[in-house]
Amino acid sequence: MRAIAIHRGESQPRLCEVPRPDPDTGAVLVRTLRVGIDGTDHEVLAGSHGGFPEDDSYQILGHEAIGVVADANGTELTEGQLVVPTVRRPPGAGSNEYFDRGEPDMAPAGEYVERGIAGAHGYMSEFFTSATEFLVPVSTAFAKTGFLIEPISNSEKALELAYTSRSSFEWSPETAFVLGNGPLGLLSLALVQQHEFERTYCLGRRSRPDPTIDIIERLGATYVDSRETPVSEVGAVHEQMDFVCEATGYARHAFETVDALAPGGVGVLLGIPSDWTFEVDGGQLHRALVLENKALLGSVNSHVPHFERARDTLADCPDWLTDAIITDVFDPTELDAAFETGPDRIKTVVEFGTR
Amino acid sequence: MRAIAIHRGESQPRLCEVPRPDPDTGAVLVRTLRVGIDGTDHEVLAGSHGGFPEDDSYQILGHEAIGVVADANGTELTEGQLVVPTVRRPPGAGSNEYFDRGEPDMAPAGEYVERGIAGAHGYMSEFFTSATEFLVPVSTAFAKTGFLIEPISNSEKALELAYTSRSSFEWSPETAFVLGNGPLGLLSLALVQQHEFERTYCLGRRSRPDPTIDIIERLGATYVDSRETPVSEVGAVHEQMDFVCEATGYARHAFETVDALAPGGVGVLLGIPSDWTFEVDGGQLHRALVLENKALLGSVNSHVPHFERARDTLADCPDWLTDAIITDVFDPTELDAAFETGPDRIKTVVEFGTR
Repeated sequence: MRAIAIHRGESQPRLCEVPRPDPDTGAVLVRTLRVGIDGTDHEVLAGSHGGFPEDDSYQILGHEAIGVVADANGTELTEGQLVVPTVRRPPGAGSNEYFDRGEPDMAPAGEYVERGIAGAHGYMSEFFTSATEFLVPVSTAFAKTGFLIEPISNSEKALELAYTSRSSFEWSPETAFVLGNGPLGLLSLALVQQHEFERTYCLGRRSRPDPTIDIIERLGATYVDSRETPVSEVGAVHEQMDFVCEATGYARHAFETVDALAPGGVGVLLGIPSDWTFEVDGGQLHRALVLENKALLGSVNSHVPHFERARDTLADCPDWLTDAIITDVFDPTELDAAFETGPDRIKTVVEFGTR
Repeated sequence: MRAIAIHRGESQPRLCEVPRPDPDTGAVLVRTLRVGIDGTDHEVLAGSHGGFPEDDSYQILGHEAIGVVADANGTELTEGQLVVPTVRRPPGAGSNEYFDRGEPDMAPAGEYVERGIAGAHGYMSEFFTSATEFLVPVSTAFAKTGFLIEPISNSEKALELAYTSRSSFEWSPETAFVLGNGPLGLLSLALVQQHEFERTYCLGRRSRPDPTIDIIERLGATYVDSRETPVSEVGAVHEQMDFVCEATGYARHAFETVDALAPGGVGVLLGIPSDWTFEVDGGQLHRALVLENKALLGSVNSHVPHFERARDTLADCPDWLTDAIITDVFDPTELDAAFETGPDRIKTVVEFGTR
C-alpha cells in the first residue's frame, strides 16, 4: 500500500510502498479517508521527536485521521463504520497502569509511544490497523472533517482540567482568551464558543485581511494583535480573563498568562517550546498567583472520553467553520505541496479517500 | 481594655488602652485567650500591607486567635464557648457576592478587609467582637493551641485546591514536599502527614542541631537542606514529588517547584514575595508543565470549611508537636520580646488568658 513516511537519515517525507498491515486479535483494519497535518508533523520531520518504530527504517507520518473499518476481524465493530483513532499506544507488546485505567494521556515519558509521532507508525497510508479500544466511532457525516476530532480533543482536555481545577469554589467564567490563531487555536476558540463564556478573545500576530482573523470575528470573538497588545496587557486594554488557553508554544506566553488572568482564573498551556532562558519578574508572578488564587496548568495529549466530547463539539460546529479551517486538500501524490506552509493555509489534509 | 496596636506613623507596636467594643446585632463579644504572631504581622509593622481601619489612628494587630464567648448578645452561641475567628470581613457595612456564598477567601482586592492585617482591627486585645458567621466553635481542649487553626486552615485550602485540580484523572499521590520550615511549613507538613502521602520531605536552610529539623524528623519526614539540595534537584537527589506546598515566599521556589514535581503533580504556592526579576529557562518550564501534565496553583486565605477541617487536623496532632511548635508565650506587657525573632523561636504567642 502507499504510505507517506519519513526514513531514517532523511528530513523530507516520501510516498512509498509498504506492506499492508494485518490486524492482530482485537484489532481492525481501517481504510484511511483523511489525515490532517499539524505542527507536530513538522517537528517529527525536523527530528525533534525522533523515535522510529523499532525494526523499521521509516515511520509513517500522521496522527489526525478519519477512516472506515475495512476488516472488522471478528471485533464488535462493523465494516463500513467510520472511526477516529487516538494517538498513544502502550510501548512494547504489553500494557501499563495508565492504559489499564484509560488514561494514557497522563502517562509519563517511556510509558507510551505515539502513532505518527514517536515510536509507532501513523495513519498517513492507505490502511492502518488499531485495537478497537483506541478507535472512536463516528457517523458518516464526519468523513471529511473527522480528523479534526484529534486536535479538538486536546482542547477538550484543557478545558476539563481548567474546570476541575476550579471546582472547589464557585467559578462562573465569563471571559476566555485563546493564545494562537493556528488550527489548534481556532479549534480551541470554536470549543470555548460552545461553552458558557460570554466574551471571547483570540491572539494572533497578523494584519487584516487575514483568513484567521475572519474566522475569529465570525465566531464572535475579539481579535487581539500581539504586536499591539501583549498578552500581559490584555487586562488593561480589554479585560482580565477567567480562562486562558495557550496554543502558541511561545514560552513567554506561559508567564504572561498569569498577568492576563482574572482573580480565580486558570490558564492551560498546550504548546511545547524549546529551551529559552529569559528574565521574568518572578516575585510579581508568584505573588499574583497567590493573592488572586490563580492557576497555571499544563496539558498534553487526550484520550477516548476527550475524543467523544470533541466529536460532539465538531458536530455542533457550523459548516462554514470547518470549510474555512480546512483550507487545503491534497492527494498523497502531492505530498511536497501538502507539507508546505503559508499565510493562507490553516489546516492541510491528505486525502486517501472520500467515503 | 488593653490592646497591642500599631499607630499611624509608627513601626513598633505598643500596648495601649482602647475602648472595649460592643457587639452589633448578630455579633458576640469574645474574651481573648491567645493570639499567635506570624510573618504577616511583621509585614504589617513594616507597612507593606497598610490599611488602617477608617476613622482610627491605630490598628490592633493579630489574626491568629482563640477566645471565649463573653457576651453571646442573643445569638445562637453560648457564653463560655471557645471560638476561633476567621480573618476576612466585608469592606464597609454591607456584604458582597464572595461573602454571600461563603467564599471570601476567593474575593479579589477591594472586596474584603482583613482583621489585624488591612483595614480592620485584629484580635490582639483583651476582647474583640465578631459576627457569629465568622467564628468557628472549638472545644475547651483547644484553649492553648486553637490559634494554630488559622495557619493550618491555609494549608487545608492549599491541599483542597491540589486534590480538586487533579480530580479529572486518577491521582494517587505518594510523595509530598513542603518548602519552608517556619510555622506554616511545619504545620503544612503536619497536615500532609495525616493524608495519604507515603513519603514526605521538608525544605529548610539550617544546620543541626535545630528544633525545626527535630520536628521534621520526628514527624517522619526527610529534611532537605536547600544549601545542599536546591528544590530543582530534589528529584535527582531524592525523588520527584506528587505534591509541593510552598511556604517560603521565596520567588525562585515557585519556578523550581515545576522541576520538583512528578508527572501529573501539583504545586501550591502560599508565600507572598516582593517584586524580584531574575532569569528562568522559561522554555523548559513551559514544556515540563505541558508534557508532564503538571499544575501550579496560588492560594491565599481560607474560610469556615477550611477552619473546621483545620480544627480536626489540629485535634489529631500529638501534644509533643504543638508543644514543640509553640516555643514562646508572652504576657501582653512583654510585647517587645514577643515581636523579636530568633533561630530557636518557631511560634510565638501573646497570652491574654488561659481559660
